[in-house]
Amino acid sequence: MTADSLPTTMRTAVLTEPGLILVESRPVPVPADDEVVIEVRSVGVCGSDTHYYDHGRIGDHVVTGPLVLGHESAGVIVAVGSGVDPSRVGERVAIEPGVPCRACTQCLSGHYNLCPDMVFHATPPIDGTLAEYVTHLASFAFALPDSVSLDEGAMLEPLSVGIWACRRAGVSPGVRVLVTGAGPVGQLAAQVAGAFGAAEVVVADVNAHRLSVASSLGATEIVDVSSTSLADAYAGRPGPDVVLECSGHEGSTQAAIRVAAPAGRVVLIGMGGDTVALPLGDVQNRELWVTGVFRYANTWPTAIDLVASGRVSLEPLATGHFELEETAAALTAARTDPQSIKSIIHPVR
Amino acid sequence: MTADSLPTTMRTAVLTEPGLILVESRPVPVPADDEVVIEVRSVGVCGSDTHYYDHGRIGDHVVTGPLVLGHESAGVIVAVGSGVDPSRVGERVAIEPGVPCRACTQCLSGHYNLCPDMVFHATPPIDGTLAEYVTHLASFAFALPDSVSLDEGAMLEPLSVGIWACRRAGVSPGVRVLVTGAGPVGQLAAQVAGAFGAAEVVVADVNAHRLSVASSLGATEIVDVSSTSLADAYAGRPGPDVVLECSGHEGSTQAAIRVAAPAGRVVLIGMGGDTVALPLGDVQNRELWVTGVFRYANTWPTAIDLVASGRVSLEPLATGHFELEETAAALTAARTDPQSIKSIIHPVR
Amino acid sequence: MTADSLPTTMRTAVLTEPGLILVESRPVPVPADDEVVIEVRSVGVCGSDTHYYDHGRIGDHVVTGPLVLGHESAGVIVAVGSGVDPSRVGERVAIEPGVPCRACTQCLSGHYNLCPDMVFHATPPIDGTLAEYVTHLASFAFALPDSVSLDEGAMLEPLSVGIWACRRAGVSPGVRVLVTGAGPVGQLAAQVAGAFGAAEVVVADVNAHRLSVASSLGATEIVDVSSTSLADAYAGRPGPDVVLECSGHEGSTQAAIRVAAPAGRVVLIGMGGDTVALPLGDVQNRELWVTGVFRYANTWPTAIDLVASGRVSLEPLATGHFELEETAAALTAARTDPQSIKSIIHPVR
Amino acid sequence: MTADSLPTTMRTAVLTEPGLILVESRPVPVPADDEVVIEVRSVGVCGSDTHYYDHGRIGDHVVTGPLVLGHESAGVIVAVGSGVDPSRVGERVAIEPGVPCRACTQCLSGHYNLCPDMVFHATPPIDGTLAEYVTHLASFAFALPDSVSLDEGAMLEPLSVGIWACRRAGVSPGVRVLVTGAGPVGQLAAQVAGAFGAAEVVVADVNAHRLSVASSLGATEIVDVSSTSLADAYAGRPGPDVVLECSGHEGSTQAAIRVAAPAGRVVLIGMGGDTVALPLGDVQNRELWVTGVFRYANTWPTAIDLVASGRVSLEPLATGHFELEETAAALTAARTDPQSIKSIIHPVR
Repeated sequence: MTADSLPTTMRTAVLTEPGLILVESRPVPVPADDEVVIEVRSVGVCGSDTHYYDHGRIGDHVVTGPLVLGHESAGVIVAVGSGVDPSRVGERVAIEPGVPCRACTQCLSGHYNLCPDMVFHATPPIDGTLAEYVTHLASFAFALPDSVSLDEGAMLEPLSVGIWACRRAGVSPGVRVLVTGAGPVGQLAAQVAGAFGAAEVVVADVNAHRLSVASSLGATEIVDVSSTSLADAYAGRPGPDVVLECSGHEGSTQAAIRVAAPAGRVVLIGMGGDTVALPLGDVQNRELWVTGVFRYANTWPTAIDLVASGRVSLEPLATGHFELEETAAALTAARTDPQSIKSIIHPVR
Repeated sequence: MTADSLPTTMRTAVLTEPGLILVESRPVPVPADDEVVIEVRSVGVCGSDTHYYDHGRIGDHVVTGPLVLGHESAGVIVAVGSGVDPSRVGERVAIEPGVPCRACTQCLSGHYNLCPDMVFHATPPIDGTLAEYVTHLASFAFALPDSVSLDEGAMLEPLSVGIWACRRAGVSPGVRVLVTGAGPVGQLAAQVAGAFGAAEVVVADVNAHRLSVASSLGATEIVDVSSTSLADAYAGRPGPDVVLECSGHEGSTQAAIRVAAPAGRVVLIGMGGDTVALPLGDVQNRELWVTGVFRYANTWPTAIDLVASGRVSLEPLATGHFELEETAAALTAARTDPQSIKSIIHPVR
Repeated sequence: MTADSLPTTMRTAVLTEPGLILVESRPVPVPADDEVVIEVRSVGVCGSDTHYYDHGRIGDHVVTGPLVLGHESAGVIVAVGSGVDPSRVGERVAIEPGVPCRACTQCLSGHYNLCPDMVFHATPPIDGTLAEYVTHLASFAFALPDSVSLDEGAMLEPLSVGIWACRRAGVSPGVRVLVTGAGPVGQLAAQVAGAFGAAEVVVADVNAHRLSVASSLGATEIVDVSSTSLADAYAGRPGPDVVLECSGHEGSTQAAIRVAAPAGRVVLIGMGGDTVALPLGDVQNRELWVTGVFRYANTWPTAIDLVASGRVSLEPLATGHFELEETAAALTAARTDPQSIKSIIHPVR
Repeated sequence: MTADSLPTTMRTAVLTEPGLILVESRPVPVPADDEVVIEVRSVGVCGSDTHYYDHGRIGDHVVTGPLVLGHESAGVIVAVGSGVDPSRVGERVAIEPGVPCRACTQCLSGHYNLCPDMVFHATPPIDGTLAEYVTHLASFAFALPDSVSLDEGAMLEPLSVGIWACRRAGVSPGVRVLVTGAGPVGQLAAQVAGAFGAAEVVVADVNAHRLSVASSLGATEIVDVSSTSLADAYAGRPGPDVVLECSGHEGSTQAAIRVAAPAGRVVLIGMGGDTVALPLGDVQNRELWVTGVFRYANTWPTAIDLVASGRVSLEPLATGHFELEETAAALTAARTDPQSIKSIIHPVR
């Protein structure tokens, strides 16, 4: 199939106002020379999608017009631009959703995720992937081996956040890791920490079901912080060298900093309030490094390898499957089902 | 002169209760095998000395008995322990005031400053150097070249804080640095940043005199934040890659974080409150690294080189000289003289 | 049992001249305050032991008097010095065989393995562990969990070489690794690379049996370089990001450098001739980093974790067990049995 | 002046066969959307230019057709492509001569200098800058402040090599540096090492004049290796932490490695033979890192700052000035004048 043989219109799920998603017909996009056209098969729902759906904004990012959500995506290449190898048609691919300018200081320094001119799926005003077809820079569509499903391909995006966090934190064999917050990103971060060789992966949350999932996916210890404080959990033994904070909760962040080991690294992944009170005396006296992650850079090949080699399991996290017409239900699944972790929408089955 | 020929008693300035320093006679200490005896000639006054004098504590460090203050020190070796080269007698030395255990994980990993069993001058209950003689681990007494005075030798201690901060922050040519707070440590941090090759060293404070001193010591730009906000100072140009926060002031810390460049490093040197509210969205979205410094490790040889080579000027910071009997006046000089930067006490002239 | 209740003499295997090992009676050593006495149960044979046995020297290290060999050791604490917790008696421990001075620049900078005053087992004139008892610095005797045998405890020493090499090389998920030479150290380095998350671990050797062992221990690919060159093995695909050169063979080193990927790291573990011809154009044009490893630092806790967690298998490498009286046979086992990998001597059973 | 107002033809110096440079008329190039047109005012002669002139090749890079030499260049923007800010016309700029693809793994990882698809001035078959006009990617033409001359602007290219080497080597205050070879690159590397704060910059060469220049430009010590070996020069004192090898001479490389301090970094800048014999025992026993530099990445802003701030002096290195028609003489100046360091050709005065 070439671009000529594609249909001219397609179904797409559009956020037209907060709380309202309509399936609309739009033209199938035409690829630029260095792009491919991807038939979208699997799109994971991210908390940011739900937040845009509910509130119409995330911080400075405001939805001012119709917006297609979705940025955790995989599918099949169905057409290519003039500068792309045509043998890629038919390739199953995972999509890295943010395309940087590749010319600025940040891009040329190895952290293109900080590019101020990033074009990123489903970040206003850029449309996302809840559509039958999307065009994308060919080199940011990564071929999947047969052993990695398209649902897994979509989840490589949140997996990339975990990989990036573990890289920034310097997780390696011998390192003790604490993950606070066992939502989808926390589950993935914990698994990635194990795959990076962490000697200890403690997962803390207040949700017993999520802790149970974490345990089954390889956490070496779980802490139900509704009954046991982190201070108590670490009493009498070395604190974590690395904290992967995935809850965005101020109290959790404070408690995690207080138990972190000397020279520890605290990576803030979950998003919290405008300002957050931190115990800086702990940061100073033990020379902790506190940082955050903003997306990721150069993670897809590693993500594919971690899944293909079985070091990370993604399938258990896919707890619901939806048609494009069910997008609203997918976005709110976590509200109605406490055991929901990750919803997958299938624009094309 | 050998240990045998030393006097048996000496004068020492003792903090007996908050606000009260008495000069007392004490036995001259006897060196262990790996120690030297140093006749103390110059002791710089640090804000921590004044804080103990005023409040009897700093955080968890509580003065519970008589305490000799002083930890920025230089002098002359007058005797050596049995395992030390006797030719060192007569050597002019600067003292690194904290001796780590050298056996724990932190010590063996290159950050001995985080050793939990550190023995540090003038940190309760360890006595400091406001005495005619002190004993000290021979390898932590560093020979000074003729071109470095004993007053400068004493100030290598706060200089070391600046060196350690610049090392942790990765200051190097091309890097833009902002120093917030132009007290003694800020003045030194700014000079060190220049010596590390920083492309730009902006110093911010509310004290016009201190800003003027910073300017004369090499700051490339000064910002009087009583009239110009950091946000305004950096409007329309790249923010600092490195912030050396020396004020301990919450508003200053917040403002500095808000202007820091993507991938910037923010080093908290000044000490603030128990918890400090930080704009973590900035930390996350620009992937800033926030950390503190706790003393220093392996800095004295570099400090000596920076002073001997003229890259850092310490003499202009020594704004007052005091006898041992004037210790209380030295501790409070900054209150009575707004132009005071660093007081030097001379237990032996 | 206390030091008082130990016997006064013990059996020890002494290299008296090249090619001659005699079992002699020597006094049981008395621990210093910070030492423990260890009953030696397992000692692995290293190529350096065999080299001293055959040639009486390794480079500048010359055996000039009777020498006890053995530095890969584990046993049980049977007595402690006055400064050591007496409850450690009975503890099963692995021995880190080199005790650094802990006062020099190297020691204080985190690479104590480069300490010029290192005291290291079986490096002339320091005696090793082929004796019923040895004394050792308490903090360099590491408690073993029940799940780690004493034979495994002894092999933590060569395992540490692999850990140190992988740390220096920056092995982590996504990294492609090539191990050249599948002797004991190569086998361990390959396993460690996998435990550090390497995406690909290719092992090259000329010995089919050793390649088969590597394959069974987790190498993702083996290359028999007696029939396939490294250049051919990597034709048409990315070269290794990391080379762990364990053969000490000039041709192998050259071939490995030629296939290494841009920005790759080449760690020389095997020892070769006085000078070795390297293709420096490759080093320059692809900005390779070439380095070596000299022992290790801060590796035992990680080594214990890798074995206890099952990420590294040591038992398959122990291919022969010997009494102290059979030391000569143990040292030469590899000559008589091509399938021999690691001989273990048991001074005490 | 706009592109429309440029002349249609220009003078250019073309290498038509080894040893023969002809000035030819060629069309003035037309800028692409993201390019600028630069009137070339200053072009430094590099050893690679001379090598192509003499031999028609450097390793795998073979001159197979007419080639314009020159890649150390500065000039004035006289026209811009449609996507470039037209206010840049008139801007004095230095040219970073290699434009990477900005899409490959190397480019996205921060070392775009290793891009396999780099387009680099005067590397066959890409023409260089010995012409009245060249087009270039706008973001790789860097504005010069008034205080930096166009001759200095041209020399930012070899200066960048020194910056890149010092960055890779980790030169910073306290570090001891040895530069072997005092040609243009060695002179610059030595100055850069000083600007990075090196505690000691020793320069070694056999040419007394070049050593004298190094001394006048800030080397802390010079060693005439025609009379004093490096081993003797470093006898009884610490060896260099960093070696910047700029001679490409095997004996020099070996001698430098033998004196390098433990954990030292040896950066090979000069180019030598196909293989070079290195004392790998030294590399292993002291865990040296040996690497090379291949061009540079992200160095121009720092280079401009070092010159504008006076930390590096370039003017003393420009020892000869030539017209475009005198290119052959400029290329061979070093042969006829032993005091020649850097020749500058001026396609437009």
